[in-house]
Amino acid sequence: MLKINLNRLKQTIDKSAEIGQTKKGGLNRLALSHEDKLMRDIFVGWLKEANLQVRVDDFGNIYGHRQGLHDLPPVMIGSHLDTQPKGGRFDGILGVLAALEVVHTLNENNIETYRPIEIVNFTNEEGARFEPPLLGSGGATNTFEKSFIYDQQDRDGITFYEALKQINYVGEKENRLDEIHSFVELHIEQGPVLENENIDIGIVQGILGMSWLEVNVVGQGGHAGPTPMHLRRDALTTVAKIVNKLQQLCQKDNQLIMTIGRMSMSPNIVNCIPEEITFTVDIRHEDDNKRIEFINLVKETIHTMTAADKVETTIDSLWDVETAHFNPQVISTVEDVTKQFNYTKRPIYSGAGHDSMYLNRITPTTMIFIPSIGGISHVEHELSLDEDIEKGSNVLLNTTLQLAQTKQSL
Amino acid sequence: MLKINLNRLKQTIDKSAEIGQTKKGGLNRLALSHEDKLMRDIFVGWLKEANLQVRVDDFGNIYGHRQGLHDLPPVMIGSHLDTQPKGGRFDGILGVLAALEVVHTLNENNIETYRPIEIVNFTNEEGARFEPPLLGSGGATNTFEKSFIYDQQDRDGITFYEALKQINYVGEKENRLDEIHSFVELHIEQGPVLENENIDIGIVQGILGMSWLEVNVVGQGGHAGPTPMHLRRDALTTVAKIVNKLQQLCQKDNQLIMTIGRMSMSPNIVNCIPEEITFTVDIRHEDDNKRIEFINLVKETIHTMTAADKVETTIDSLWDVETAHFNPQVISTVEDVTKQFNYTKRPIYSGAGHDSMYLNRITPTTMIFIPSIGGISHVEHELSLDEDIEKGSNVLLNTTLQLAQTKQSL
Repeated sequence: MLKINLNRLKQTIDKSAEIGQTKKGGLNRLALSHEDKLMRDIFVGWLKEANLQVRVDDFGNIYGHRQGLHDLPPVMIGSHLDTQPKGGRFDGILGVLAALEVVHTLNENNIETYRPIEIVNFTNEEGARFEPPLLGSGGATNTFEKSFIYDQQDRDGITFYEALKQINYVGEKENRLDEIHSFVELHIEQGPVLENENIDIGIVQGILGMSWLEVNVVGQGGHAGPTPMHLRRDALTTVAKIVNKLQQLCQKDNQLIMTIGRMSMSPNIVNCIPEEITFTVDIRHEDDNKRIEFINLVKETIHTMTAADKVETTIDSLWDVETAHFNPQVISTVEDVTKQFNYTKRPIYSGAGHDSMYLNRITPTTMIFIPSIGGISHVEHELSLDEDIEKGSNVLLNTTLQLAQTKQSL
Repeated sequence: MLKINLNRLKQTIDKSAEIGQTKKGGLNRLALSHEDKLMRDIFVGWLKEANLQVRVDDFGNIYGHRQGLHDLPPVMIGSHLDTQPKGGRFDGILGVLAALEVVHTLNENNIETYRPIEIVNFTNEEGARFEPPLLGSGGATNTFEKSFIYDQQDRDGITFYEALKQINYVGEKENRLDEIHSFVELHIEQGPVLENENIDIGIVQGILGMSWLEVNVVGQGGHAGPTPMHLRRDALTTVAKIVNKLQQLCQKDNQLIMTIGRMSMSPNIVNCIPEEITFTVDIRHEDDNKRIEFINLVKETIHTMTAADKVETTIDSLWDVETAHFNPQVISTVEDVTKQFNYTKRPIYSGAGHDSMYLNRITPTTMIFIPSIGGISHVEHELSLDEDIEKGSNVLLNTTLQLAQTKQSL
């Protein structure tokens, strides 16, 4: 079996880890930021050095095309180079740089493939700067309208389009991904399952459906000193009760995953009673019906509790996506390769959203997971071990090779 | 009894209400901001038009001096012109502009006083931009070291000194208030007591002691999707329980006032588990011992709850001040004047901190309260009625006059 060069791959990961490095050794490389531009420029240089044809589409997605013997729909591999504000050095990045390493390995072994192979870096996967996440792959797969993507604003009111233009990565619409044969994304698990069970490779079956709600609660402000406690309608008092209640409700179904990740208070001053609070609720479940059931329960609970406390509330739906079920043929290709390497493996669902979720709508898709130490991600000390990176990349290499030698479409 | 000119006073209040006006008709005039500078420039012009000698001290406090027949310690009246980010048009401002109106009334009636009268506008009373509050009066009364005040930073890292310099209001140290005979501050109640009991004038006996704590809670971050609920150490889950528990504890003593007014989460992203939360607790009580008892209970409760949830915590004390008891002679002067006008009155304690708290440490001091409609303040729709403004200003006028004709020091 062909193997990747771990040292070469590590060099690119280490270089990437310098661009937007945080004091604690993580990465702060928000989509379309100055740091993102620096990384993109380096990445484009690497693609060219690997003799790939580089193109950029109108969402800033970067493609590196390796010709096949036949001008057929390519096998696409890749992920994203942007990070959370306190992100790690592997999330997304590994999938892009392992894809580059796949090409390097094929090049140095003079291997030609039946189909072309295409590397991709999708814009704003994280959704940390521009919500919702997956804007680049969402645009490339026609999941979102172009105007919707372009108009999204960051917290400073800068639009996606303005930011894209500022870093000089507005490409052409005709450069978007065209028909593709299949898509494979290598990624760290970002959860504790593989590490806990001492498993090398997660064969990803699909991605949990998820919903994002934004809840706004308006009580009554006022000066902290002279307003007697019994006359207050303090937004935080109500929201704290809601948070506790939702956590309790969530415990009733151990497949339910709920996170209240973003919260802002107004006026947010030590000696002012909180007048207004906005917070988000992220809800995930493998079973779409149970997710929708829980959303309704959350909404009902919030309305009941805010009414009891005489505070006003509105609940907006920011994002809803159904559980994605990946392609059985691509999954079984990954499985076969893993078996041939004698790596341990297990089927797994992804709790996190990935570009693969949208790619799966237009092409046969799957993902390859490797263990995350401590099961954690979206933190600065996120870690995956060299041996796992090597195994995952070897699986990606041989899966890509096998798919790229396939004459039929899947 | 001499009376002020309500129309003239209202004109200055209306003019002030234009400088930093919010869409909802409130004021956003943070200390040492561009808007604060605009207001200061106008105010200095008004002081000069009233033939007052204007000086500015090294904390940006502005004084307008009206000569007396004798060069004795003056009677000082005034308050502050800065506001909360979503503040009203009366808080603080009324005390400064009513003081100006007192001088206008004396001037037009050609009344000379035995002692000088001095108007003051103190810098950064609110503490909304630079914490703690009362920095200007704290500096002028030697409560805070100059370097402490100068080094305080706003949320953008701009220091008090930089901001003061930027708006060109760094005055001279020798311009600080010298020995003063007495200090009287007219202010809106900012609470519901006077309105509820249909009382014209609150004779303020003192100011509740208060403490500010800052609590930092650090759990474990991670990606919202793949981290199973039972393995999480979500900072918000713990903080929400703490908020609920503290609210319950506070209810056991109906003289206790507690506000959790400021809270920030990190990383504060929809799909990231909250890793770190910082929040403040504002605690007030007339009885200093009971306040300290409650602070200890709060600290103990937080430490117990965070230990149970295996999250780390630190608690810092940002500010502590004992209950201030105002001067009986100045109080009785206000009381006599109110009686002579046949205005209804009651003794009252202030739940809010005021510049008078620090002035009381160096000179005989009291405050005059007028009703706040709905008992609310630090909000854009803060309101006091014309008739109450007139009554309060008449009491301030005649109290000032009586004190300024007093030969003895109090």
